[in-house]
Amino acid sequence: MTPSISGGFSRRALLGGAGAGLVAGAAGGALGHAAIVPAQASAPGLGAGRIDFRGPHQAGIVEPAQAHVQLAAFDLTPGAGAAGLQALLKRWSATIALLAAGEPAGDGENQIALDAGPCSLTVTVGFGSTLFDRTGLQAKRPAALAPLPAFPEDALDPARSDGDLWLQIGADDGLVVYHALRVLQHQAAEVATPRWQMAGFSRTPGATTRPRTPRNLMGQVDGTNNPKPTDAGFAAKVFSTGPGWMSGGSYLVMRRIRMLLDDWDNISTDRQERVIGRRKSDGAPLSGGTEFTPVDLTRQNPDGSLAIPADAHIRSAAPASNGGAAMLRRGFSYADGIRPDGAPDAGLLFLAFQADPAHGFVPVQRQLSRGDGLQRFLKHEASGLYAVPPGVPAGGDGYLGQALLES
Amino acid sequence: MTPSISGGFSRRALLGGAGAGLVAGAAGGALGHAAIVPAQASAPGLGAGRIDFRGPHQAGIVEPAQAHVQLAAFDLTPGAGAAGLQALLKRWSATIALLAAGEPAGDGENQIALDAGPCSLTVTVGFGSTLFDRTGLQAKRPAALAPLPAFPEDALDPARSDGDLWLQIGADDGLVVYHALRVLQHQAAEVATPRWQMAGFSRTPGATTRPRTPRNLMGQVDGTNNPKPTDAGFAAKVFSTGPGWMSGGSYLVMRRIRMLLDDWDNISTDRQERVIGRRKSDGAPLSGGTEFTPVDLTRQNPDGSLAIPADAHIRSAAPASNGGAAMLRRGFSYADGIRPDGAPDAGLLFLAFQADPAHGFVPVQRQLSRGDGLQRFLKHEASGLYAVPPGVPAGGDGYLGQALLES
Repeated sequence: MTPSISGGFSRRALLGGAGAGLVAGAAGGALGHAAIVPAQASAPGLGAGRIDFRGPHQAGIVEPAQAHVQLAAFDLTPGAGAAGLQALLKRWSATIALLAAGEPAGDGENQIALDAGPCSLTVTVGFGSTLFDRTGLQAKRPAALAPLPAFPEDALDPARSDGDLWLQIGADDGLVVYHALRVLQHQAAEVATPRWQMAGFSRTPGATTRPRTPRNLMGQVDGTNNPKPTDAGFAAKVFSTGPGWMSGGSYLVMRRIRMLLDDWDNISTDRQERVIGRRKSDGAPLSGGTEFTPVDLTRQNPDGSLAIPADAHIRSAAPASNGGAAMLRRGFSYADGIRPDGAPDAGLLFLAFQADPAHGFVPVQRQLSRGDGLQRFLKHEASGLYAVPPGVPAGGDGYLGQALLES
Repeated sequence: MTPSISGGFSRRALLGGAGAGLVAGAAGGALGHAAIVPAQASAPGLGAGRIDFRGPHQAGIVEPAQAHVQLAAFDLTPGAGAAGLQALLKRWSATIALLAAGEPAGDGENQIALDAGPCSLTVTVGFGSTLFDRTGLQAKRPAALAPLPAFPEDALDPARSDGDLWLQIGADDGLVVYHALRVLQHQAAEVATPRWQMAGFSRTPGATTRPRTPRNLMGQVDGTNNPKPTDAGFAAKVFSTGPGWMSGGSYLVMRRIRMLLDDWDNISTDRQERVIGRRKSDGAPLSGGTEFTPVDLTRQNPDGSLAIPADAHIRSAAPASNGGAAMLRRGFSYADGIRPDGAPDAGLLFLAFQADPAHGFVPVQRQLSRGDGLQRFLKHEASGLYAVPPGVPAGGDGYLGQALLES
């Protein structure tokens, strides 16, 4: 790992920016606010955060969720075929490499975020099952892309589900994300048309003392028991071993999960904690300890009841309840205003990477459908399953999906 | 101005968080990305950013736009009356003061962002014209709240316009913003019901070398000639002198302005710059100089044509074209996916504070309707005009709107 600052975005310039923030704070103080602690002076490195596009796996899988995300699906235009797909993946790969390095990409008239650093931008590309039909590549469709089963909690909108191509664009600045989305969409114009797009967010770096585990819109620490890259067996859980062109890739399950927040807020904190199985304040399991203390599913309260209730979310979701099934979750919150009935249109853009959905999302969600007390506070409104091909090796001029299209 | 860190959010804890960010970066590197520059380590002070709720003016007017915003409108429930409004404004004022200080607010079951600092949170409250009818306070309705005239570019959706009460909730972390929205909405439950909510964003502190002037989704530097708090005459442009209860308040015009980005991207950079009147790269006026060089509307090119074209946006919007009319713009971008026709549902949540709309937004927008080349790339989809009462003086137990309800 060689930390380096991308060209054209100097630390001196950033510190100049911090000075402007202090001026604004002083002006506010002159207008009468008793205490203004300017934040701008404190974040000199955020824009310079940089994650290389190239590597054995795509970026945007193991890295922490950024402050902003746009998810986008595209459908290939009739006649684009494998040749059109190949040309698009070459263009996208070259462009993503530039964007991730904070270098200019796209035509001048499409520029949006001209003065920003890369802000830890990652772009992750996935292939939906229908892609293989549209390109005559059915023989190469992985068995792992078999349609997800229906679940009782599904209320899926096909218009916001699936798609031939899927993009996850994350960065710590909203304008940087939107710029990348627009440039990549323009480059797709002759080959693929937008199917749906969704925006989400996670914590801004420095906002919280708990950067390692995000909180969701229910206020719950969410992701404590996520596999960690340093764990033994991490790669076997997250990365695929084949078919050949998918070796080093991963499978991504997306679910747009609306939270019934008015119902959630109508139960007590104590009941909320028993629905999840963790304390809201610090994420510690109800079996005791602190956030990262291993969950003890057998522990009993003094009255003989289970410390982690029978219908607690972390019981149903635990690998021990699902034959060891595990996945790497990398979700984002969304908050898109209110619905016609006045309820919040808000929840979780659930994203989970896994070596095989049949040993990841599918058994876990089946278990959740059977006995998870959390499910009555959720509606699954959209769904997608995508093959995320391996990364582009450093040092060459390869492109995403090359092994699929050239093998 | 006394910079201070709010309780319960120590610098030590933040630096601990930064350490976790470094671990994540290192793990990513082990998995093969050549260069990961972690941003989390670089933003220790963002969460601690704090803007005091109290002062002669409300917070969220002169302070720079934060990274995230939620706008929310409410309508009073039948029978709530002036007494219900007063009780709500007392609750909201006490709660906003706590939220802005980074202290717990709301009931335990409503907690979302438990571990965050205030992240420069501001909450700004406004009163729509209809509020005065619903509370028997018609006699105190300011003349400045007269309905805005219709403009040719209007395509307004009444369901996302107007409202009795208006909130602007801004902070540098999306979860902090959403927590404040939910707590304030719960406190309104018996008195007011949600009418509409919209989410937006501006630059994340540290993302760009240009924190002083944001860029919009057209990629244009937007806000260069905004009045500055240090300017002579700033207060006269932005803050009201009456009627009495509004002394020190301001009037806020909100417009949800969708940008026709596909059309915009179809013209050249050169044409984009002539539509605006500024260079895209650095915001310098086409009459020469750098971003903050005064605009010379009379300057001619060597061929005798105007350097700032006759229909350039900055010509129509200039105070010199509008009898000196000026306002303090504090807009946010929005990007809410794609519309059924495939076009981006994205643009600007235009927010402008002014002492009197009749000498601010109204004459400027009339001038823009007449001759601004930018208007054909815009659709005004929602509109609101609100009286933003003065702030709550430091040191007392006052509440927002007290002078309206007790005078």
